[in-house]
Amino acid sequence: MGVKLGILGLGTVGTGTVQLLLDGVGRHPLLQEIEIYRVGVRSLDKLRAVKLTEDVLTTDLDSIVTDPQVDIVVEVMGGLEPARSLILKAIKAKKHVVTANKAAIARYGDEIFTEASQYGVQIMLEAAVGGGIPVIQPLKQSLSVNRIHAVTGIVNGTTNYILTRMQTEGSSFSNVLADAQRLGYAEADSTTDVDGLDAADKIAILASIAFGGRINLEDVYCEGIRHISKTDIAYAEKLGFVIKLLAIAKRVTPLTPLSVRVHPTLVPQAHPLASINGVNNAILIEGEPIGQVMFFGPGAGAGPTASAITSDILNIVAALKTSTLTTPNPLLTFKHQDFCQIAPMAELVTRFYARFLTKDQPRVIGKLGTCFGNHGVSLESVVQTGFHEELAEIVVVTHDVREGDFRKALTEISTLEAIDSIPSLLRVI
Amino acid sequence: MGVKLGILGLGTVGTGTVQLLLDGVGRHPLLQEIEIYRVGVRSLDKLRAVKLTEDVLTTDLDSIVTDPQVDIVVEVMGGLEPARSLILKAIKAKKHVVTANKAAIARYGDEIFTEASQYGVQIMLEAAVGGGIPVIQPLKQSLSVNRIHAVTGIVNGTTNYILTRMQTEGSSFSNVLADAQRLGYAEADSTTDVDGLDAADKIAILASIAFGGRINLEDVYCEGIRHISKTDIAYAEKLGFVIKLLAIAKRVTPLTPLSVRVHPTLVPQAHPLASINGVNNAILIEGEPIGQVMFFGPGAGAGPTASAITSDILNIVAALKTSTLTTPNPLLTFKHQDFCQIAPMAELVTRFYARFLTKDQPRVIGKLGTCFGNHGVSLESVVQTGFHEELAEIVVVTHDVREGDFRKALTEISTLEAIDSIPSLLRVI
Repeated sequence: MGVKLGILGLGTVGTGTVQLLLDGVGRHPLLQEIEIYRVGVRSLDKLRAVKLTEDVLTTDLDSIVTDPQVDIVVEVMGGLEPARSLILKAIKAKKHVVTANKAAIARYGDEIFTEASQYGVQIMLEAAVGGGIPVIQPLKQSLSVNRIHAVTGIVNGTTNYILTRMQTEGSSFSNVLADAQRLGYAEADSTTDVDGLDAADKIAILASIAFGGRINLEDVYCEGIRHISKTDIAYAEKLGFVIKLLAIAKRVTPLTPLSVRVHPTLVPQAHPLASINGVNNAILIEGEPIGQVMFFGPGAGAGPTASAITSDILNIVAALKTSTLTTPNPLLTFKHQDFCQIAPMAELVTRFYARFLTKDQPRVIGKLGTCFGNHGVSLESVVQTGFHEELAEIVVVTHDVREGDFRKALTEISTLEAIDSIPSLLRVI
Repeated sequence: MGVKLGILGLGTVGTGTVQLLLDGVGRHPLLQEIEIYRVGVRSLDKLRAVKLTEDVLTTDLDSIVTDPQVDIVVEVMGGLEPARSLILKAIKAKKHVVTANKAAIARYGDEIFTEASQYGVQIMLEAAVGGGIPVIQPLKQSLSVNRIHAVTGIVNGTTNYILTRMQTEGSSFSNVLADAQRLGYAEADSTTDVDGLDAADKIAILASIAFGGRINLEDVYCEGIRHISKTDIAYAEKLGFVIKLLAIAKRVTPLTPLSVRVHPTLVPQAHPLASINGVNNAILIEGEPIGQVMFFGPGAGAGPTASAITSDILNIVAALKTSTLTTPNPLLTFKHQDFCQIAPMAELVTRFYARFLTKDQPRVIGKLGTCFGNHGVSLESVVQTGFHEELAEIVVVTHDVREGDFRKALTEISTLEAIDSIPSLLRVI
């Protein structure tokens, strides 16, 4: 039995996937039962890095997802539309779907999974998070016997590259961004990466799998790294931290809502995520009884992403060979129907790092302490390091505090005559 | 449909597994279809941390593996016999087997997999390597589309704990070992861990999965950490390395034999494995097209190991629910029939670190260089740091060299009048 693929898109990732499938020697023998039956492209005239016969390439993507011969639709075109509509059409035509499209899944996962469940097909999306790193499959198959407490990831390579260079070179955000764009590590329009939107899509997907419920993307707090200064990176280092853009999904107790968020975070230097540098990604999963496990690897790129997509295809092919089609493998299916409740940020309990510029008045630290005390904020460390023009610079790290209470304290502090400004406010893991 | 387990052994790991299975809330719903049907123990009178009804506990382990009611046998008794015989009996009685027994699998995998293949049952062994870290399942399911080049692991927590403390405290091996034994991080009889035997079992298992062939354990080169001195740890650090006990399986080109070995190794400080400290384990997998991925987590302990065992059980239960029993899922099966060819250590190409004690004669470095040159060994760095009693201490790191050639050079060097001794010789990754 040959399994027929209909691939939508032949860009970087599509090409990588086709190359892998056409070069099966030394890989799992099951790959040889897969046929690249149709590949949908925008233009037939473009020069391609892979050789495909004329009858395989087509510009009629609709015809692929409804073709009765196609068993699995592989969506690697990206973007929201027509990707979403094609995925939905494929499902209705009873095709299994493999996709790398984090943006579409994070936004339309609700309807996509509902339809997939109704039509009895599998949606596989290993490539949507962490590039080639196996994380979705392990979460579903190996770790689902655990009660998951937290998923914490460095899931955006561009921002991790920028922060790593700011750290090692002492450069400013805008200088490193410009250089990263020149070198191809950041896109010309860097908003999706730099403002944390890409990481938010990914943590929404990870949270939905880890905690078994759907996630409303609008509930995911999202703060990027544009405002990170080299000053803060230097202070963080002095205090024993590095600054990373973390995507976090956490359940404090089984009965409380989730906290799902993306923000730059001070990470202790001995923390497993602190040493993840450059374009690499890593996802740390905490649960009971496993404790902590971490998955590390290349977060993007044609090769790694093709590895993830092809392993998804292989899993479906293996299931097709052995399963009765009426009962799909419960470890591959997304069973959740309900939305997870997500707590507002004011309810978050975390440590904070804050930097203040103050007029160098006597007792200003005492005054800060009084305001913090009024709102139940206790301080782990206070550093007064020097002068910034005419102003003194004071950095504090708090103990765990409710974010709402901390912000009330900051509001009170900002009215103090001695306070010039509060240039930085970051969370600490 | 309930799936009935026959569990062999109720020690630390067995107890952890039973506790997990009896406490299903917040875990995968499929766990609720699993019944702890029989648990085989040595004594019925012992006080147990888990409550099981009288008809579940039995001292007749043979009766469990042949009981027609039992679907899955979970072997968590450890040791070679009677574990091996019971596993083989279970297979012949058409039971699927989940085991954490790295020693039995590394030694008797040959006959166990042959029988399993004949009787059409699954052998699952996630817990045999890396405790709770998902690595066997990802290798088989997510990474099998890659051509694997190398698997490199820190797979023994005891030795990593000892080396980490030697590194951070500057203590000697024997002092840290004694303390580790006192604290319960090392066993009274530490040979299996300290001499690398446990790591050899594990890399043999990983290599057989990654490279799709059986491994003859006797072909695995195995060198422990007893001879690591604080002097070498200090020199390594000065040169930008940490010393780790690595288990390595590597194929340089598709047509050459494998290199499978366990030995203390100088690891560059920026290498992903360099920052794996304490009792943690990590396995780095390199392949094409994925590049490098690493799996990190707790390498032992009742909870993590129970997580791995239970996820194996869950995978079989999922397969039983959906598969036609005549065609087991090809991604769960071990298909290899042949033994991998393993290259002798003399053929290994690697960098070396060597420390020499020399009589402080002029031109001794020149003489070393001449001997190395005679055998095609080129040096990456040479450090002459000081005097050790009346002798000068010289440390060299070579470029890549065939181990056989390097050893010939050392033999020649040891005959030089200026050389007192060669106290250390370590490989460098």
